[in-house]
Amino acid sequence: MKTNALSNMGQRTAEPPISWLMHAALSRPKLISLAAGFTDNTSLPVAEARAALDRVLRTPRTGRPALQYGSTAGDPILRRLTAEHLRKLDFQALTTSPSLVLEPKSRTSLRAEASARQARTKGEEEKTYSPERLLVTSGSQQLLYMTTEALCDEGDIVLVEDPTYFVYLSILQSRSLRARGIRLERDGLDLAHLGKILTTLKRRGELRRVKLLYLVSYFQNPTGVTTRFEKKAAALKLLKEFERAAGHPIYLLEDAAYRELRFAGGDVPSALAVRGAASRVIYAGTFSKPFATGARVGYGLLPEPVFSTVKHIKGNHDFGTANLLQQLSAQTLESRAYGKHVARLQKRYAHKARVMKQAIEEYFPAAVEWWEPEGGLYFWARLPRHIPAGMKSKVFQAALKNDVLYVPGELCFADDPARHKPNHELRISFGSASEDDIREGIKRLGAVLRKFL
Amino acid sequence: MKTNALSNMGQRTAEPPISWLMHAALSRPKLISLAAGFTDNTSLPVAEARAALDRVLRTPRTGRPALQYGSTAGDPILRRLTAEHLRKLDFQALTTSPSLVLEPKSRTSLRAEASARQARTKGEEEKTYSPERLLVTSGSQQLLYMTTEALCDEGDIVLVEDPTYFVYLSILQSRSLRARGIRLERDGLDLAHLGKILTTLKRRGELRRVKLLYLVSYFQNPTGVTTRFEKKAAALKLLKEFERAAGHPIYLLEDAAYRELRFAGGDVPSALAVRGAASRVIYAGTFSKPFATGARVGYGLLPEPVFSTVKHIKGNHDFGTANLLQQLSAQTLESRAYGKHVARLQKRYAHKARVMKQAIEEYFPAAVEWWEPEGGLYFWARLPRHIPAGMKSKVFQAALKNDVLYVPGELCFADDPARHKPNHELRISFGSASEDDIREGIKRLGAVLRKFL
Repeated sequence: MKTNALSNMGQRTAEPPISWLMHAALSRPKLISLAAGFTDNTSLPVAEARAALDRVLRTPRTGRPALQYGSTAGDPILRRLTAEHLRKLDFQALTTSPSLVLEPKSRTSLRAEASARQARTKGEEEKTYSPERLLVTSGSQQLLYMTTEALCDEGDIVLVEDPTYFVYLSILQSRSLRARGIRLERDGLDLAHLGKILTTLKRRGELRRVKLLYLVSYFQNPTGVTTRFEKKAAALKLLKEFERAAGHPIYLLEDAAYRELRFAGGDVPSALAVRGAASRVIYAGTFSKPFATGARVGYGLLPEPVFSTVKHIKGNHDFGTANLLQQLSAQTLESRAYGKHVARLQKRYAHKARVMKQAIEEYFPAAVEWWEPEGGLYFWARLPRHIPAGMKSKVFQAALKNDVLYVPGELCFADDPARHKPNHELRISFGSASEDDIREGIKRLGAVLRKFL
Repeated sequence: MKTNALSNMGQRTAEPPISWLMHAALSRPKLISLAAGFTDNTSLPVAEARAALDRVLRTPRTGRPALQYGSTAGDPILRRLTAEHLRKLDFQALTTSPSLVLEPKSRTSLRAEASARQARTKGEEEKTYSPERLLVTSGSQQLLYMTTEALCDEGDIVLVEDPTYFVYLSILQSRSLRARGIRLERDGLDLAHLGKILTTLKRRGELRRVKLLYLVSYFQNPTGVTTRFEKKAAALKLLKEFERAAGHPIYLLEDAAYRELRFAGGDVPSALAVRGAASRVIYAGTFSKPFATGARVGYGLLPEPVFSTVKHIKGNHDFGTANLLQQLSAQTLESRAYGKHVARLQKRYAHKARVMKQAIEEYFPAAVEWWEPEGGLYFWARLPRHIPAGMKSKVFQAALKNDVLYVPGELCFADDPARHKPNHELRISFGSASEDDIREGIKRLGAVLRKFL
């Protein structure tokens, strides 16, 4: 008799490696963790959440709907506010972003071109940001999961950045999906590599297994890289060119979880703003990271038939996200408490990122290459090629022994037979650690790195 | 080119038939819905939730953890309180329930036997109700979904009551699982039929595809039936006997969502209380229905290796249930606001059920057979065999035309080739309708039925 009755998926779904890191942290009381993806604790909007919930629950008229079931797609008011919020983000990004110019030949001012683009696509814009296409989820994570369920069968191929968000890799692994890594440049996806991979897959007759490209487009987890707007547009164009050979649409799943945590530079429009592309873009956003990770309200903007399919899947998962959390989000959006908090948070992370940067400049050996982000929670560092930094490496063990923890970059690279898995990178987070701990943690890490360099 | 890129599961996941009912309701403003599974609106604990959240968010010390990520399995305090809550429910049920006697030959008093059983199994009891086995989920629905993911591969067989909870049937259908219906008697599962089905499956070599028996054990949705404790014990014994032929454990997934909504009779111990059976019982409970459906906190008590597997799956779904909702639940459990609310709610439903019973007695023709529940939200009615009551039936259409809606029982019967699907039953809910609407709704429904009988 088998010892268990688990499904194939159940047997594949293993403890995520990151859990091991967390356990390691627990057993060392003096350890400074630069590994956690937690958000800054001291700036959590306790008073704001209390005020908003107090308002929602002040009377039975407003309080009862918050404590009752709702509809699977989400609260209509929150759907409207969120769609409007996203439309505004993209409009502002389009009219201010230096990365706007789609055709470099154009000599008109950026602002004028943006207006022209908007004017040309008013009807399309309304359709693209329609609340009818918006689905509220339990954090954007749930949207990633359900979208993958809706689109991918066992053995299908998902294109991901190389490296990418490791929990998404866990989803792919547990569902027996194959990941193919697309190289990442300082300004986002390597388009030439994307083209090459698509061509290779076409030649091998595997293009029909490709359903989507997963892109963490803002201050990517783990590298902090933001993909330029032109690159998103070009990627969509490229995917489109391969659709005939694939025999079906190929979607761009844009994970914008960190978008509102920008503290330098101007916002980049989402892929939804690429003209004529909304039918191929699945946008995943969230209020968790920019407001309260304990409230877990995310959302997706999806084209049909993906929207309806994911909505029905959500019906089977949980009927709909907790109304109480949705009302909290709607209340903070409407009262502008949300916007004010995001502005404060951006300043806070700007400061913490500066502290980390200064510490890195002071303590890291010169041979370490590192990338400074314009938002989000992460710095990305790369050791010289002969020095591994993975879970079993001497560097990692020495760091742990010296009470400082980072996320080994190797956890963020897919199992892709096309290349050797890189293992000399580090993800270093300034999200949850205090300023003192950031400085001290980087100092400890720098001392460890000096020993090996 | 295919018009879509949906996965097989995506293509199978259809709009649930119940959505159609809801749409129908929206288009008729005067319609009285006895179909919705919503809970009573007027008794939602608005003031209690406000007070509890106010307490949680009063200081940064207590407020921040509520707004931060937590661990995937759930908040440690809520896990402890919930495990303790469940242990108490079972202990009280064991010491007071008339359905306790496992061996009818015994002449000792029920209470004495219960004590003896407890004494014999103290160590086991502690293990069974250990917080370490408890997983917090987004309503118990999410636990049902993830447990099914963890155990069942495409084509596997799930034993269900005939009829059963239709959203669970949706899950099975979308995941290409086969449901086999076990007849239901007034006091629960028909054990002889369970034995017969297992024997047939064994003879056909299909037993290895059977992973679990799904049982809505308290005031079942849709019939209102509660399965006696002896029957749960006997079902577990029966499943165990077939495990060798199956080649793996066969689990009892006990869905106790309605358990605390009892308004008559004494509580029945859960299957967890069956001696030596905890390794085969997956218990799904919830605070949503007895407290606030808009807060969506459910939980499971699971044996290994199912517990760890489902926990890892939950990590991929959403990392863990929103901490804010968990703190709300913990706060109301600890302050006893929860217990007080449940007691009030029980009285409220007792009253509404009485109103419905009196209306049925007054308005329904004598030829209609109906079952009165001792808790939960539903009455179950059966028309004479020659009168269909399904979605396409004249009865259903006439009811809709007369502005009263019920859930056709046929939606709750699995697609099971072993029998013709029954279609002359009605699920009638007193959960969300007002007393006046219950009376008027039953009056309208009675008038419709009289026309056909």
